[in-house]
Amino acid sequence: MPVQGGLTHLDANGHAVMVDVADKAVTVRQAVARGLVTMRRETLDLILSGGMKKGDVLAVARIAGIMAAKKTSDLIPLCHPLALSSVRVELTPTEDGRGIEIEASVGTTAQTGVEMEALTAVSVCALTLYDMCKAVDRDLTIEHIRLITKSGGRSGLYQRVEAEAPGQAPAAG
Amino acid sequence: MPVQGGLTHLDANGHAVMVDVADKAVTVRQAVARGLVTMRRETLDLILSGGMKKGDVLAVARIAGIMAAKKTSDLIPLCHPLALSSVRVELTPTEDGRGIEIEASVGTTAQTGVEMEALTAVSVCALTLYDMCKAVDRDLTIEHIRLITKSGGRSGLYQRVEAEAPGQAPAAG
Amino acid sequence: MPVQGGLTHLDANGHAVMVDVADKAVTVRQAVARGLVTMRRETLDLILSGGMKKGDVLAVARIAGIMAAKKTSDLIPLCHPLALSSVRVELTPTEDGRGIEIEASVGTTAQTGVEMEALTAVSVCALTLYDMCKAVDRDLTIEHIRLITKSGGRSGLYQRVEAEAPGQAPAAG
Amino acid sequence: MPVQGGLTHLDANGHAVMVDVADKAVTVRQAVARGLVTMRRETLDLILSGGMKKGDVLAVARIAGIMAAKKTSDLIPLCHPLALSSVRVELTPTEDGRGIEIEASVGTTAQTGVEMEALTAVSVCALTLYDMCKAVDRDLTIEHIRLITKSGGRSGLYQRVEAEAPGQAPAAG
Amino acid sequence: MPVQGGLTHLDANGHAVMVDVADKAVTVRQAVARGLVTMRRETLDLILSGGMKKGDVLAVARIAGIMAAKKTSDLIPLCHPLALSSVRVELTPTEDGRGIEIEASVGTTAQTGVEMEALTAVSVCALTLYDMCKAVDRDLTIEHIRLITKSGGRSGLYQRVEAEAPGQAPAAG
Amino acid sequence: MPVQGGLTHLDANGHAVMVDVADKAVTVRQAVARGLVTMRRETLDLILSGGMKKGDVLAVARIAGIMAAKKTSDLIPLCHPLALSSVRVELTPTEDGRGIEIEASVGTTAQTGVEMEALTAVSVCALTLYDMCKAVDRDLTIEHIRLITKSGGRSGLYQRVEAEAPGQAPAAG
Repeated sequence: MPVQGGLTHLDANGHAVMVDVADKAVTVRQAVARGLVTMRRETLDLILSGGMKKGDVLAVARIAGIMAAKKTSDLIPLCHPLALSSVRVELTPTEDGRGIEIEASVGTTAQTGVEMEALTAVSVCALTLYDMCKAVDRDLTIEHIRLITKSGGRSGLYQRVEAEAPGQAPAAG
Repeated sequence: MPVQGGLTHLDANGHAVMVDVADKAVTVRQAVARGLVTMRRETLDLILSGGMKKGDVLAVARIAGIMAAKKTSDLIPLCHPLALSSVRVELTPTEDGRGIEIEASVGTTAQTGVEMEALTAVSVCALTLYDMCKAVDRDLTIEHIRLITKSGGRSGLYQRVEAEAPGQAPAAG
Repeated sequence: MPVQGGLTHLDANGHAVMVDVADKAVTVRQAVARGLVTMRRETLDLILSGGMKKGDVLAVARIAGIMAAKKTSDLIPLCHPLALSSVRVELTPTEDGRGIEIEASVGTTAQTGVEMEALTAVSVCALTLYDMCKAVDRDLTIEHIRLITKSGGRSGLYQRVEAEAPGQAPAAG
Repeated sequence: MPVQGGLTHLDANGHAVMVDVADKAVTVRQAVARGLVTMRRETLDLILSGGMKKGDVLAVARIAGIMAAKKTSDLIPLCHPLALSSVRVELTPTEDGRGIEIEASVGTTAQTGVEMEALTAVSVCALTLYDMCKAVDRDLTIEHIRLITKSGGRSGLYQRVEAEAPGQAPAAG
Repeated sequence: MPVQGGLTHLDANGHAVMVDVADKAVTVRQAVARGLVTMRRETLDLILSGGMKKGDVLAVARIAGIMAAKKTSDLIPLCHPLALSSVRVELTPTEDGRGIEIEASVGTTAQTGVEMEALTAVSVCALTLYDMCKAVDRDLTIEHIRLITKSGGRSGLYQRVEAEAPGQAPAAG
Repeated sequence: MPVQGGLTHLDANGHAVMVDVADKAVTVRQAVARGLVTMRRETLDLILSGGMKKGDVLAVARIAGIMAAKKTSDLIPLCHPLALSSVRVELTPTEDGRGIEIEASVGTTAQTGVEMEALTAVSVCALTLYDMCKAVDRDLTIEHIRLITKSGGRSGLYQRVEAEAPGQAPAAG
């Protein structure tokens, strides 16, 4: 399917295709992705302060991420539709008090992997945080959306080598 | 609606709401957002090489961004559904040959702004680039998704102050 | 449009149509709907117990209701697509400790009303509560989904006459 | 996965997750749900009168229910996406001439059950009846949405014990 | 916006854009489209025979067309999302007993027209007829999907000149 | 399931159902569909002229077709949701310089076939061409949407007998 070293989503004429996975094995596959939303210290304080209030901001973002994982193939044109067996999204304030780290873990038993589902969950979770904070802080920035690990399938285990920390270590949580 | 300095998407009990915009003026509103996808030099070369092939990779990403702008209120839980009057997504290879800068511009005539639509277009465009390149480069990273400008509505013009360049200036291309 | 006393969504041949609202005035319109989910006392205790845990169950249901309001015209075949100006969903445990009352309020400025949006928000909020509780209580039942008030538009104010309380008065909550 | 007696959709911190079903067996699973729409006698007469007209009101509601079953995982935040093998929705006027009983039956061969799909089909079918009748009767009420039976999977057969009839026995129909 | 004689959906670089309609007038706009599904005589007989049975085949196709009109901007990448004020789909057996003519009429009050909505309604209505008949006749063919009239907006009235009848005049039916 | 010679999507009462495929074998299934968009010679010239410009028009249409295949069960009321293993859409200008032939090929490993997915991809690809050309040519017509081949499943191989060419042979392209 992929030409050696080529882009798998283009055919010999350079035309977009949804690549054929009919010959791939149905295996358990998992992927973890992460990203970071940076913000002013006051903005993070607002999100975290006040017992009940805290609940809904983070809960809305978490649920938006989970629901987005299920919409991945509707958003990414050449992505295969998949039945997912698990989705988990976790948000952790960073130690420096100026960001929220997002991690999404997705699993399936299928012929193709779930990297895109994990990355989409992180992205939409981050966008949702932006949406809820934008009235007080329009400078929020979404950073470092990346694949951390991927397992299952022919290509085996992928583990990203994090050359340097993204600057902010997540707090104990 | 917003408590002074508070989060607009939470009511007095901290519960999520879609804020009431019934009293806001219907005005022309625009927003521009940007982001960056970093990759290995060889990956960018693959995307840009070969006449026709080039067409589809960038075209798929562009269209995915445009279509995602229309799905914003379906993805972001507390976002208002809107009729959009224009969407434009542009991709520009960076000068250092290791990234693609994405810019999305969205317009509407409505009671609420289109920041989220522009940011969503950038995010999904970036995810689509990841999807098409992941077979040759799993280390692609999505960086610096941010609002650049926003106009229209009560809060007037917002113009982000870019304290430092995101590291890679877009090439002329 | 409507034959005197007839069903507006059928034409003279009894065929389904999306009725023409082009001649209706664009006005501010609001609707409130309510429903009740009944459950075992132990199930409600589980939902309400434990500080943080409480947050997510009710938050997930609330958000599901808000998002469903935006999908109404995608679910109800002859319903007009609308831009909504506000959506609010509130959940209140009933005094007898065996149920959760759901109330959804929706607003728009449009040529047609938002009863269906409010009723859909209540229904999907209730289904979401069922989903989250079904592992411990499959006997949950959704009751009394109904329109409470509706304002705006040619037909003016509608206020439901509640002949009898639905059996369980909501607690102070 | 579920803590003994706990809510399966919350993790140890009370955060929402889509529970992991990767270890569950792929089995044939079925679910039947029911609900009731009550209305004025004149409203039911309008729906049932007139040969062809009858066709479309009930047909629209039936199709809305079937299509909604396919959208369940898009509506219920923590619900797994599933391939369905069958969906059937039946509407039966009640003997007292004041209601329509709705029954939805859904089947799949998957790692998780289809209760939510059956309940969603009933709910959206009922909402669609409301929509088509609301111009003549705003007092329509949706009652008793509940799971009747469920089979397949580890938990085996569930059969609801109907302590009392919902008040209106369906007519021969 | 459109370069004289050029394609409006491409910018100066040939890149896809959703064209800017912010300066267009909000006017009442309507469009009518038609198409034809041809089939074996026996297939049409099956669809039309049997009182109630007739109801559902045509009703399902009609509703599918109406619902598809509402999804147009989700299907057609550069199409603007719109609030529709009316949708009507009519199916008429052709005189020669070998086809069903489909006509869709759509209206809106907006800055852009509804040709695509009418054409999409016809197309999905036709696909739905195919789906329901394919077990008995795989040779069904969808023909002559075209815009018939369009009114409202700057370009004024369009009326297609039907050079020749599509071969089959619709029956009185 | 199907009564001999009957319509499979109707039950004994003529009511629409999503037919039960639980007993069908999971097999590799493929389908190919085709259609034609006819236009004025000048319109085709515009699409094909100019290096980069050419890229996006055909790319947008191709991607719209691929994405539509994934939405088939959302559009066609009684169609089963399916995981697709491949989708390919090809556009070829016809020899007479007045049309574009569209071919869609879809594959799955499932209990039911993918004819509807292939036909839907062709239809939406054609509608997208119409949308992009309508500012210069409103007379574009969509013709001959039909199933070409289908394999896998109990009914075996179907190969359409093309009694006569659709008038325009595709060019070498």
